[in-house]
Amino acid sequence: MGGDFGPHVILPACLSALERYPYLKILLIGEIDQLESLLSKQRFVESIMSRLVLVPSGDSVSMDEKPSSAIRHRQNSSMGLAVKAVAEKQADACVSGGNTGALMAFGRLTLKMLPGIERPAIIASVPTMNGHCYMLDLGANVDSSAAHLLQFAIMASVMVEAVDNKPQPTIGLLNVGEEMVKGNEQVRLANDLVRQQEGLNYIGYVEGNDVFAGKADIVVCDGFVGNVTLKSSEGLARLISRRVRLGFTRNLYRRFLAILARPVLKEIQVQLDPSRRNGATLLGLQGIVIKSHGSADQRCFGYALDRAIAEVLQNVPGRISERLSGYLSSRSD
Amino acid sequence: MGGDFGPHVILPACLSALERYPYLKILLIGEIDQLESLLSKQRFVESIMSRLVLVPSGDSVSMDEKPSSAIRHRQNSSMGLAVKAVAEKQADACVSGGNTGALMAFGRLTLKMLPGIERPAIIASVPTMNGHCYMLDLGANVDSSAAHLLQFAIMASVMVEAVDNKPQPTIGLLNVGEEMVKGNEQVRLANDLVRQQEGLNYIGYVEGNDVFAGKADIVVCDGFVGNVTLKSSEGLARLISRRVRLGFTRNLYRRFLAILARPVLKEIQVQLDPSRRNGATLLGLQGIVIKSHGSADQRCFGYALDRAIAEVLQNVPGRISERLSGYLSSRSD
Repeated sequence: MGGDFGPHVILPACLSALERYPYLKILLIGEIDQLESLLSKQRFVESIMSRLVLVPSGDSVSMDEKPSSAIRHRQNSSMGLAVKAVAEKQADACVSGGNTGALMAFGRLTLKMLPGIERPAIIASVPTMNGHCYMLDLGANVDSSAAHLLQFAIMASVMVEAVDNKPQPTIGLLNVGEEMVKGNEQVRLANDLVRQQEGLNYIGYVEGNDVFAGKADIVVCDGFVGNVTLKSSEGLARLISRRVRLGFTRNLYRRFLAILARPVLKEIQVQLDPSRRNGATLLGLQGIVIKSHGSADQRCFGYALDRAIAEVLQNVPGRISERLSGYLSSRSD
Repeated sequence: MGGDFGPHVILPACLSALERYPYLKILLIGEIDQLESLLSKQRFVESIMSRLVLVPSGDSVSMDEKPSSAIRHRQNSSMGLAVKAVAEKQADACVSGGNTGALMAFGRLTLKMLPGIERPAIIASVPTMNGHCYMLDLGANVDSSAAHLLQFAIMASVMVEAVDNKPQPTIGLLNVGEEMVKGNEQVRLANDLVRQQEGLNYIGYVEGNDVFAGKADIVVCDGFVGNVTLKSSEGLARLISRRVRLGFTRNLYRRFLAILARPVLKEIQVQLDPSRRNGATLLGLQGIVIKSHGSADQRCFGYALDRAIAEVLQNVPGRISERLSGYLSSRSD
C-alpha cells in the first residue's frame, strides 16, 4: 500500500516479476478489495496466478506517520504484516515503498538485529565513472559512533561481495578535504577501527568528489551526511537535466537538433537515472527488507524486486551473520 | 604563491583585473624574482603598472602543511603577509589560492573574529533552478554547535543582502528527509534558535534536493556536511559531463551531431561551471578574505578578485558587525 501510487504500481510490477522469475512466489499484502478490483483489470498469464497470493491487511502506515506510532498502531498494516511474514519464514524478503522510518522500526522490532550489529543502515548504489558504487548509511541513523561505522563497513563488504560477486570490495570512509580540519571525531576514530579490522579492503578516507569518481566500491558515512549527499546529487541531476531541456528548446533550430540528439541524450539519462538503481537495502536485520523509492513507477519498483531476489539467492543476512561471528570469535581470542 | 599554478595564473589575472577596475590597486605578494621575471614576459598597458605593487615574501605555505605549522613558521609567507596587509589596513581584502586551513588560521590569528562570532565559516554560491543560492559552512568547521549555526545564518543573511542586493534572503537549515529520524541534535536545537532570532527570513528545514532546486537563498549546515555536499556535487557534474562527452563521440554520426550541438552543450556547461562561481568568502573575520579554488585558471581567479571587490564596495564585515551589535544589544535588553 506504500509509495505515491500504492498497488496501482506495485501490482503490475509484481505480475511482471512473476513472469520474469518462474520460481518466484509473491504474497501481495494490502487492502483486499482494492487489490482484487485492480487485479481484475490487469492482463496476465493465468499460469502465474498460482504464484500470487493476496493477503488482506488493516490500516496503512501513512507517509508522514512517526515510526513509534506505526509500530504501536499499525501492526496489521501491509508493511507490518510484510515484515512479520519474513520473521515467520513465510517470505524470504519484504519489499516496501512506504514510510522508511516505520519500515526500519518494524524491521528492528519484528526481525531483530543481527548479533553484533547495534544499528541498521540503509545502503544503495550510485553511478560512478566506472560503473557504480554503494553508499551507506543513507539516513537510518544520525550521530553514528565509530563502532557503528565499522559495523556498516563489515556488512556492506559482505553484501557487495555476495550480490555483485566482487571479492574484497574496496571501502572508503567519507571525510572532508585534505586541507581542512581533518574530519570530526567519530570519523577519525572509525578510521582507526576500520583499518585494524582484518578482512576488510580499506583504502582510507575518500572525499565527496571521490564518490562519483568511483574511488571506492563502498563509501561509509553517517546517515545524515549520506542522506544529504544522495538527495543533493539527485537534485543536481534534475537541475542539469532541466538545463539541457531548456537549452535544446530555446528556438526552432535547437528543437530540430534535439530530435537528432535525442537517442544520445536519452542514453545518457538512462545511464544516470537513479530509478534504475531503485531498491535500498536495510542492512543489519535478521532478514531481507528492501525499500523502494516512494515515487517509483512500475519499471522502477521492478528493480527493487530484482534486488530482493538477488539478496535472497545470495543469502545476504546469513553471510553477514557468518562473517560477524568470525570477527566476534577472533576478537574474543 | 598559492594554488596549483601560483603566480603563473595569479599575475595575469591581476593584470586583467587592474584593466577592468580603474580604481583597483593590487599588492601582489610573493617570491620577488619569480614575480619580476613573469611580469617581464607579460603584455600589459603601462598605465596600470602604477597600481600594481610587488611585495617580496618568505617561504610559502605548502598545500598540505598543517595550519598550526603555517602560523608558527610561515608568518612571512605570501599568505601570512597578505592577511597582515588587511589587518594593518594596507589592503581592503586578501585573495588567496593557497591552503584553506592555513588561510583560516592566519585570518583568525591576525584579523581576529568579529565580536559575537566564535567560528569563521566558508560560504560560496551553487547553481539552482532559478539562479544560485549560497551554502555555508563548506568546511571551516566540523561539529558546529547550534549557536554556531545561528551565527552562520546571521552572517550569511547580511552578506547576501549586501552583495546580491537581495533584501531579506530566505534561510533554510539543511536536514535529512521528512520520513527519517528528524535530524541530529545540533540541527534540532539550531532550528529553534534561528526561528527565534528576529530579523531573519527563516523558512525551516531544507533537504539535499532542495539545495539545487533553489528552495532557499541561503542553506546553513555543518562544515562536514557542506564540504561533502559541495565536493560530491562537483564530482557528479564531472561524471555527467564525461558521460555526455562519451555519448557524443561513440561513432562518426554522433561526432557530427556533437559539432552541431556544441553551442548548446557549451552554454549548459558554462551555466553549471563551478569555476564561474569561484571565490569562497571566509565569513566572520574582521576583514575580507577570499579563497580561490586551488585549480583556478586565470579567468577563474579573476572571479575571486571580482568577489573581493564586491565585498569591499559593500563593506560586508562592517555590515555584519553592525547587525551583530544590534542583536547583542537587543539580547541584553
